[in-house]
Amino acid sequence: MSKAKGSRTERELLHLFWEAGHFCLRVAGSGSMPFPCPDLLAGRGGRSFAIECKSGKQGRRYITEQQVNELKEFAKGFGAEPWLAMRFDREGWKFLKPEQLGRNGGKHFFISKDLCQEQGITFEQLLASRKPSGKM
Amino acid sequence: MSKAKGSRTERELLHLFWEAGHFCLRVAGSGSMPFPCPDLLAGRGGRSFAIECKSGKQGRRYITEQQVNELKEFAKGFGAEPWLAMRFDREGWKFLKPEQLGRNGGKHFFISKDLCQEQGITFEQLLASRKPSGKM
Repeated sequence: MSKAKGSRTERELLHLFWEAGHFCLRVAGSGSMPFPCPDLLAGRGGRSFAIECKSGKQGRRYITEQQVNELKEFAKGFGAEPWLAMRFDREGWKFLKPEQLGRNGGKHFFISKDLCQEQGITFEQLLASRKPSGKM
Repeated sequence: MSKAKGSRTERELLHLFWEAGHFCLRVAGSGSMPFPCPDLLAGRGGRSFAIECKSGKQGRRYITEQQVNELKEFAKGFGAEPWLAMRFDREGWKFLKPEQLGRNGGKHFFISKDLCQEQGITFEQLLASRKPSGKM
């Protein structure tokens, strides 16, 4: 995936959040900062989401264990929920929690179309979902 | 103030937060987005700050009423505290709450050196301060 395409899909999701009445921001240099950072932060009424965006044509998209841990830590610092947002070409966004990611024995986690189909929730479902209680 | 200088001072503050053990991010295109956005978001242990950064040599720096309202609204959406961060040349950062800004009769708020001196708190004081209870 090109950097430009990644930014484009991030902006697409940013607009979806704004249109749904949520505040949302893109993190400057999220992929190149010396600090762990997600791609987007969205919030409304005090509930907020720290989101790592992935997009691609097909197949699997990999995420390292370190990236997943950093997303979770970052989210915790902000009192936000950590989410992975996946956008396969010609399909809508699907959202997965870190613990729903696939794992293939090694240090890498992955997202696939099957996984999105089976476990992912849509944008509308994410907004309609309840804020998890207690520790995230 | 040039855009490059503004970005430089924002990054300076970003690093201060990271060095102090806080998560912090710069908002991509904060000044040019079609949506209200602060410059920085910082957080730790669930307490977070939405920060509009200003810098300059001397004199007053102006902020419109709309910008102040947007900062407050945005912060509320994320459950964050709204703060103005001011960095005069050769002086340290001073932090002011929206209600501490100066006002000159019109629609504009301002920050001045005197105001920073009288009402502003330092970076260390900000981190040591208590999270306000109740509605922000």
